[in-house]
Amino acid sequence: MIVSREFKLVRRPVGFPEESDFQIVETPVPELNAGEALIRTVYLSVDPYMRGRISGARSYAAPVEIGEAMVGEAAGVVAASRYPGLAPGDFVTGGLGWRDYAVAGGKGLRKVDPAIAPIPTYLSVLGGTGLTAYFGLLDIGQPKPGETVLISGAAGAVGSLVGQIAKIHGCRAAGIAGGDGKISHIVNDLGFDAGFNYKKTDDYRGALQELCPNGVDVYFDNVGGAITDAALNWLNLRARVVVCGQISQYNLEKPAMGPRWLSILIAKRARVEGFLVFDYAERYAEATRQMAQWLKEKKLKHREDIVEGFENTPKAFIGMLRG
Amino acid sequence: MIVSREFKLVRRPVGFPEESDFQIVETPVPELNAGEALIRTVYLSVDPYMRGRISGARSYAAPVEIGEAMVGEAAGVVAASRYPGLAPGDFVTGGLGWRDYAVAGGKGLRKVDPAIAPIPTYLSVLGGTGLTAYFGLLDIGQPKPGETVLISGAAGAVGSLVGQIAKIHGCRAAGIAGGDGKISHIVNDLGFDAGFNYKKTDDYRGALQELCPNGVDVYFDNVGGAITDAALNWLNLRARVVVCGQISQYNLEKPAMGPRWLSILIAKRARVEGFLVFDYAERYAEATRQMAQWLKEKKLKHREDIVEGFENTPKAFIGMLRG
Repeated sequence: MIVSREFKLVRRPVGFPEESDFQIVETPVPELNAGEALIRTVYLSVDPYMRGRISGARSYAAPVEIGEAMVGEAAGVVAASRYPGLAPGDFVTGGLGWRDYAVAGGKGLRKVDPAIAPIPTYLSVLGGTGLTAYFGLLDIGQPKPGETVLISGAAGAVGSLVGQIAKIHGCRAAGIAGGDGKISHIVNDLGFDAGFNYKKTDDYRGALQELCPNGVDVYFDNVGGAITDAALNWLNLRARVVVCGQISQYNLEKPAMGPRWLSILIAKRARVEGFLVFDYAERYAEATRQMAQWLKEKKLKHREDIVEGFENTPKAFIGMLRG
Repeated sequence: MIVSREFKLVRRPVGFPEESDFQIVETPVPELNAGEALIRTVYLSVDPYMRGRISGARSYAAPVEIGEAMVGEAAGVVAASRYPGLAPGDFVTGGLGWRDYAVAGGKGLRKVDPAIAPIPTYLSVLGGTGLTAYFGLLDIGQPKPGETVLISGAAGAVGSLVGQIAKIHGCRAAGIAGGDGKISHIVNDLGFDAGFNYKKTDDYRGALQELCPNGVDVYFDNVGGAITDAALNWLNLRARVVVCGQISQYNLEKPAMGPRWLSILIAKRARVEGFLVFDYAERYAEATRQMAQWLKEKKLKHREDIVEGFENTPKAFIGMLRG
C-alpha cells in the first residue's frame, strides 16, 4: 500500500499565513477506480490565489476547510493508471493539491510533453497563467500590429506575459503596476515599451495620456477599480477590453461604487468581455506549442523560483506571498 | 429661383418647448454645386433626441444654435440633381432639417424605394430606429432561438422593434418600461412575452427574476442606470449586452455612481458592446429588404402619427414630446 504525505489546513491565518497553519499528515492512497490514475508529484505550484482559498471568504471557488488538504496545481508522473489515455511514465499537470501522491480522474489531467519544454514551465508559462495570457490577449483582445495594448497588473504572472505576447504581435505594450521596481522590470527585462507606477500619482488619467499618447486599443484588465475607470476613458474607437481579473474588488464585502461608463462604449463602439481559461481547454495544445516555441526562441522570458523538498511547501508559499 | 421655408430656433426652451421657440422664414435655395441634389421634402420626422439638440447641453452632437435652422431627418423627392447617383423623381431620406426644400450632398442621402414600403416607414421602421434595432439585436446581440432577450426602454421606438425582431427569431422577449399602459402595449399589441413596469417597484432584481426565470441571454440596453445594474446581475453564461442607449445618464453633469460589476463578466464569460448604426451603412439595403418583408407579412407592427402641413412641424414636435 502506498502512503501519501499531504498538507492539511489546520488554522485559518489572520494576516500573513504561518507555516504552523499547515500540518503534514500521512494517509493511505486508495485503490484506483476505472478512469483514475495515480500520480507521483514532481513539482507543486504555489500561487497568490491560494491566500484567498484559505481565508474562508466567499469567492468564485469554495474555500479550503479546516482539516482538508490544501488545493493547488502540480506536475507529476503517472505511477499507475486505469484511464485509457494515460500510461505509467507519462507526465501530467492538474489540480492535485499539496500531496506527494495523488489519485485523480484522468479527464481532469493534462498530459504534457517534457520534450517540448521543461516540466516546471507547464505550471507557469505553459500552465494556467500562460494560457490565460495567450487566449485572453489573442482571442478576446484581437490585437493588431501597431496597436497599443495596455495592461493592468502588468508585473504579475499573467500581465508580464500579456505584454510580451503583445510585443511579439507587433503591438506597443504599456503596463501599469505598483512600484518603480516592477516598472523597471517590465520595461528593462521584459521589453514593454513603457510603464507607469500607479502608486506615484492620483491622476491616473493624466498618467495614461502620457503612457499611451495614441490611446488604448486593447486594455487587458487584471485589477479593476479606479485604474480601470481611467483606462476606459482613454479607449480608442473599436477598442477591446479583456476582463481577466478584478483583484482590487475581490475582497470587498459588497461591490464598490464607481462612475458609470457604459456611454463610453457607444461613443467608441467598444467591446468589454470576460473569460475563463478553462473554456479554451480544447485549444491548450495549440497554445502550448506556440508558447514553447517562443520560449525556445527567447521571445518569452519568465522567472521561476524552485524550492526543494515537499516538506518545504508552506515555507515556499509564504515566501511567494512576501514577494 | 426657388424659395425654401425653414424653421429656425429663435429661443432655447426651458422645460417644455413652445411653438414660439421656432420661427418660419423664407430663404432662397442656392444653386447646386457638383455632387449636390435639391430635395423637396415630403415627410419630416420629429424625434425625442431633438429636445437635447436645442437645449445647448453638451452631447455627442453639436447643439442647434439660436438663429440656425432646426435639424432632423426627412424624406423627400429629388427635384434637381448634380449627383450622378440621383435623378429627379428619386425618393431619398437624409438629415435635411426642418425645411421644405433642401440642398444636400448626394453621398449623405439614402435612396429609398417606394415600391418596397411606404415612404414614411423609411423614417421609422426602415429608418434609423429600425436599422438600430436590427443591427444592434442581430449583429451585436447574436440571439439564438429559445434564448431570452431583455430590453430596457422596451416601449420606445427602438425597443419595441427589438422585441418584435427577437420574437421573429424564436426568442423569448421581455421588456422593461415605465408605465402599465406601455407594458400592456408591448405585450398585447406587439407580442412581447412579458414586461415589467419599473415605476411600480424598487426591487428591480426581484422583478427581473420573475420576468426572466431562465436568466438573460441578450440584454438590449437603451436606458442604463439602476435597471441595467439589475440586468447585469441576472445574465446567463456567455450573455451579450448590447449598449444602444443610456438615456438615464445623458443629462447628468458628471457620471453617476453605480456599483462596479466587471467581475460579473468574468464569472459569466459575458460580453458588453456598444455600437452606432452609422457603422452599418453598407448593410442598410440588406436590413431594409428584410424588414420591409416582415412589415408586409405583418410580423412587425409600428405606429405612425402623421401631421399635415409643413407649418405644423413645431406643433407636431411638441405633441410628440408630450406623448
